[in-house]
Amino acid sequence: MTTRPAVLIMQRHLAPLTAFLESAYDVYRFWEGPPVEASARVEALVVAGEFELDKALIEALPRLSLIACFTSGHDGIDVAWCAARGLPVTHAPGVNHEDVADHALGLIIGARRQIVAGDRAVRAGEWTVDAKTITPSLRGAKVGIVGLGLIGEAIARRCEAFSMQVQWWGPRPKDSAWPRADSLIELARTSDILVIACKADETNRGLISAEVINALGPNGLLVNVARGQLVDEDALINALHAGRLGHAALDVFETEPTSAARWKDVPNTTLTPHTAGATTEAVQGMLSLMMQNLAAHFAGQPLITPVRTD
Amino acid sequence: MTTRPAVLIMQRHLAPLTAFLESAYDVYRFWEGPPVEASARVEALVVAGEFELDKALIEALPRLSLIACFTSGHDGIDVAWCAARGLPVTHAPGVNHEDVADHALGLIIGARRQIVAGDRAVRAGEWTVDAKTITPSLRGAKVGIVGLGLIGEAIARRCEAFSMQVQWWGPRPKDSAWPRADSLIELARTSDILVIACKADETNRGLISAEVINALGPNGLLVNVARGQLVDEDALINALHAGRLGHAALDVFETEPTSAARWKDVPNTTLTPHTAGATTEAVQGMLSLMMQNLAAHFAGQPLITPVRTD
Repeated sequence: MTTRPAVLIMQRHLAPLTAFLESAYDVYRFWEGPPVEASARVEALVVAGEFELDKALIEALPRLSLIACFTSGHDGIDVAWCAARGLPVTHAPGVNHEDVADHALGLIIGARRQIVAGDRAVRAGEWTVDAKTITPSLRGAKVGIVGLGLIGEAIARRCEAFSMQVQWWGPRPKDSAWPRADSLIELARTSDILVIACKADETNRGLISAEVINALGPNGLLVNVARGQLVDEDALINALHAGRLGHAALDVFETEPTSAARWKDVPNTTLTPHTAGATTEAVQGMLSLMMQNLAAHFAGQPLITPVRTD
Repeated sequence: MTTRPAVLIMQRHLAPLTAFLESAYDVYRFWEGPPVEASARVEALVVAGEFELDKALIEALPRLSLIACFTSGHDGIDVAWCAARGLPVTHAPGVNHEDVADHALGLIIGARRQIVAGDRAVRAGEWTVDAKTITPSLRGAKVGIVGLGLIGEAIARRCEAFSMQVQWWGPRPKDSAWPRADSLIELARTSDILVIACKADETNRGLISAEVINALGPNGLLVNVARGQLVDEDALINALHAGRLGHAALDVFETEPTSAARWKDVPNTTLTPHTAGATTEAVQGMLSLMMQNLAAHFAGQPLITPVRTD
């Protein structure tokens, strides 16, 4: 008879956490179809915050007392609903925002200076003696950052090293070294590059609407390192087809993994598989916070990094 | 009968300069097979500095009095030989070093965070629910810069914004904010990322030898935004095949355009078609300097930006 608490890992790509969790817990994996008795035993869920967490599942786990979100973002979890049930949620804030910002700059430089397209052209034998690709300089480019949290500020600092001009918008004013635009539309209208770096929740789904995309315009570059749901992706694809937007460099998508077919004929895109925050160092930091939160919870001590519900 | 000086453009990709030059000069284009009388008339050559300039051609132009190099680099021109003939060479220094540094950072982030590879994977449908790419963080990575001139310093400043650790090596010590390694081999041995940013001439052909590449090692990233001839390209390709080098991100090649076939089966490469310095703004600056140098020369005034031969 075991005395170890049981935890249930929800998403397949979190499978590598098993080895670490098994040092202290009995581990079930959702996609393997856990045995019937598991539902009576599971005390904690281990989840990636970008995936919707099924409330019916939560209600079917009578002993569930913690949702341990491996990621910083927790938009797939209805935290207020959980709080009302007395169910705490932990996450991993402040671990990978510098890595996400690095990736955002990689997408900006890659798109603006045509690094992905250039690589494709060299491999296709399209570099010829009479061809010379000329691209716009980064210097002086106007970068608009949507959401000036940890990630947004890290992006802004890096943009300054490239002599880009930074402005931002978020729903709430805050003290910062960079000017805040009057509105999101105004930010898009006056930016060459719009970088989405805000938290996603039910209040801002589709924030980057057709209107915002059109305001960014035919020479504009849209970069998304936040969440796919923040963008009206159908509107984005339509704008790219019609040449109403210059380029979209996306690390996140409405549905993940996004399908190759969805982007097959869409011009002027750079697509990465949600890797902006996934560095060796960040994953180690997230793993450490998750293990600490689980240990604190089962020892009856205060959680290290609970999601705040105020 | 014309009184306008005649100029000869040497390389096809410089053809767009014709319209500007024709405002003041009679323009011949080498690849079109200029008429016989042209050789008696040409007073200036317009060239791109990365291509070897044929001395026999120079000797066949009796009225030639200026070589106007459109680029900053002038490694294809034997400037000392020209000076000995009383033939001045002008170039375009200090115009595009910030753009070249931007591109170098794009190559570093793109290779290290697998942006080009990620884009290819998404398009190939290789992003699946159980796949998660984890890449090394930039923070703390050791960057070794070969040549701390204008380009090298611009790269170093940008690397600091990503919390990378900068060191450098060049044949001559100089005051700088970053430590100089004792030797090139030592720089390669102690760096995660080696960026080539030095001038190329006959003294440093093949500087990045098999030994330097092996010192950088199986997790190392080699970035070249300088000149292809600085690298022993056959040795580089062998090292990539054998896994003795982690990745090569190259904007310049031994022969340009490089052939797609040469790189077809070479793993872990990012290839761009010599576009690091080719921005709209830089090209305008280079055009302006070239036109000013030509005008000064034909007015008998001091050249604006002659290549120094001291």
